[in-house]
Amino acid sequence: MYECNRNRLQELIEQFSQLGATANGGVTRLCLSKEDIAARDYFCELCKELGMDIQVDDMANIYATLPGEKSCPPIVIGSHLDSVEKGGRFDGVLGILTAIEVIRTLKENDIELEIPLMLVNFTNEEGARFDPAMMSSGVLTSKFSKEQMLQSTDKNGITFQEALLASGYDGEQENRLTEALAFIELHIEQGPVLEEKEREIGVVEGVLGMVCYEITVTGESNHAGTTPMSMRKDPMIVASRIISSLHDQLGEIDEELVFTFGRMHVAPNIHTVIPNEVVFTMDSRHKNPKVIEKVEKLLTSLASEENGCDIRPVKLWGRETVYFDATICNALEESCHDYGYSSHRMFSGAGHDAQYIASIIPTAMIFVPSINGKSHCEVEETTFEDCVKGADVLLETVLKLQTKLSMGEKFTLNQ
Amino acid sequence: MYECNRNRLQELIEQFSQLGATANGGVTRLCLSKEDIAARDYFCELCKELGMDIQVDDMANIYATLPGEKSCPPIVIGSHLDSVEKGGRFDGVLGILTAIEVIRTLKENDIELEIPLMLVNFTNEEGARFDPAMMSSGVLTSKFSKEQMLQSTDKNGITFQEALLASGYDGEQENRLTEALAFIELHIEQGPVLEEKEREIGVVEGVLGMVCYEITVTGESNHAGTTPMSMRKDPMIVASRIISSLHDQLGEIDEELVFTFGRMHVAPNIHTVIPNEVVFTMDSRHKNPKVIEKVEKLLTSLASEENGCDIRPVKLWGRETVYFDATICNALEESCHDYGYSSHRMFSGAGHDAQYIASIIPTAMIFVPSINGKSHCEVEETTFEDCVKGADVLLETVLKLQTKLSMGEKFTLNQ
Repeated sequence: MYECNRNRLQELIEQFSQLGATANGGVTRLCLSKEDIAARDYFCELCKELGMDIQVDDMANIYATLPGEKSCPPIVIGSHLDSVEKGGRFDGVLGILTAIEVIRTLKENDIELEIPLMLVNFTNEEGARFDPAMMSSGVLTSKFSKEQMLQSTDKNGITFQEALLASGYDGEQENRLTEALAFIELHIEQGPVLEEKEREIGVVEGVLGMVCYEITVTGESNHAGTTPMSMRKDPMIVASRIISSLHDQLGEIDEELVFTFGRMHVAPNIHTVIPNEVVFTMDSRHKNPKVIEKVEKLLTSLASEENGCDIRPVKLWGRETVYFDATICNALEESCHDYGYSSHRMFSGAGHDAQYIASIIPTAMIFVPSINGKSHCEVEETTFEDCVKGADVLLETVLKLQTKLSMGEKFTLNQ
Repeated sequence: MYECNRNRLQELIEQFSQLGATANGGVTRLCLSKEDIAARDYFCELCKELGMDIQVDDMANIYATLPGEKSCPPIVIGSHLDSVEKGGRFDGVLGILTAIEVIRTLKENDIELEIPLMLVNFTNEEGARFDPAMMSSGVLTSKFSKEQMLQSTDKNGITFQEALLASGYDGEQENRLTEALAFIELHIEQGPVLEEKEREIGVVEGVLGMVCYEITVTGESNHAGTTPMSMRKDPMIVASRIISSLHDQLGEIDEELVFTFGRMHVAPNIHTVIPNEVVFTMDSRHKNPKVIEKVEKLLTSLASEENGCDIRPVKLWGRETVYFDATICNALEESCHDYGYSSHRMFSGAGHDAQYIASIIPTAMIFVPSINGKSHCEVEETTFEDCVKGADVLLETVLKLQTKLSMGEKFTLNQ
């Protein structure tokens, strides 16, 4: 078994942390910003030094390939270099940097691959500058129309198309990733489960299905001082009762179900005025579609009227549960075992490029622990020890898959 | 008994409705805006035509006096010409225009007064352009410091002082209203009670005491998809429970108590993020201080911690119940009876200049019905029939007070 180099990986992480560094130890590296372009340039430079061939597609996705003895579709590893505003030093970029460390370890150990190994950087995973998130993996897998994506506009009125043309990373459509033997994305967990369970590696079997509802409660605005209680139609009271009651009822469905009332707008939002409208969201996620069905049934069976207020739930969107490839997950688990790293099979609650790629390529993910479960913020943190353990598992799994694939084993797509 | 002229009053109301008219039948006449100044100019012009003497004080309050046979402090009637943004055609201005109609009716009936009758326009009752509301009556009665008020700034960065100097209504401090035998403010009810009870006139005995609390619930932001329910500190759930529970408990204290959760801010207010903070207000009003005490006790005895969230109630402000003058209220009721107008004794839930003036001058208010209880909006409406009934009662009460005062009757200040 080969071991990745902790100090070398740490140095690499610290180098990339400088590209868009914020005052409090995080990074702001919005998609196709000058910071993102600097990170892309440096990524390409490092890959070239490692003898890799670089291609860019028409969504600015970057592919760096280490050739294999065989001329066949590659095994792909990687993630994304972009971050949210005042994000952390690990989200996304760690999947790229551990992949570089894997290549460096292969090189220093003179390991020749049979199957090509490709590193990928997906454009605009975060959706923080251009909506939606996972934009380019979505285009690759026909979830989104490229034409619509080109018109997505940042807060300064710049379109994705304009940013793309100005970036120097506007490549060819023929370079798009369409075929590969496997895709593995290493990522920070962005949650507290591995830390809580004291496990070193998360073997990610899929991405939770989710629904997001927006519930609008409409009442009637009146003066807070002059309107007797019996003559009010107060949507704030009704909304509070719905949230309390849904919280209790949803909590009884399944202990693994998560649900969040994250956004609320109150109109006119003046302390001396009874509101006329309260609008809030309910985001809920679970791996079992039957559980999500129960959630939806609760939402759609809300009373349409309470205390004179209209209640209208609207489904904003949903996503089906994504199941990753069982063969790859087994290989990940075996690799953990080989190194003596504790592992935990889990689903991702957050969205990742892997969930789209899984529809065309056998896919799985590796999670490394997030300290206090924090992500998308400057205090986001993963220990370098955990980072290098993730790199080890990535390396060993790539090697295992090489062997399996060379022996003719077939993967089961999204089992 | 003399009767005011309905058509003449209607015409006057319609004339003033043009000064700051909005597209949907309301008015925007912010304090010391060009629309407010146009209304002031026209008010002064009408008062001069009626042979009244006009003075302006250092807060731009306008006083127009019809002399009496005696040289003694006046009886004062009036209200305010300013409005909120997209307010209605009646709030404030009706108290001025019914006062003009009273003078016109006195004039056409050749009634000579013993005691001078003063019309007043108070500056910045609404507080819609310059905070706080009831600014100049507050300065007259030493509730606010003039120096602080001069620094109050509108959303364009203009100070009240600058607006005052530019208005042409920057008068002398020596003209301030400091002494009067009585003050009567006619105003729309701004609530649904008179309409609901089918009464024509509200005899206002005082202004409800109130408290306003801001409750801050602090939890911990985390990813909505990756954080198990058991590991959350979700302030939205806690805030919803507090609102539901307070609503039930406050409702049991007294049926006349009103309470409103009008404002709520959620941070970061993103549907995929568990909030870290929810801040909301509770405004509560009642005439009985002991009832308000119970409200405060409920708020201050909230648990300081629930489900891992900190709960911190802070009192933003309170006002004591204001009791108006019993002699004036009785005279108002008698006047209603004389005309055969149904009346209802009540407290005001809203704040008015009268509540401050009551601390230095025997004071009461007349309410006329608000259709559907609406105010501070373009659909605010009172029938012209109800307006003129209010004017009748105002006129008759002024005459009754003239008689009582001439006979040496003393009023009981804020009984």
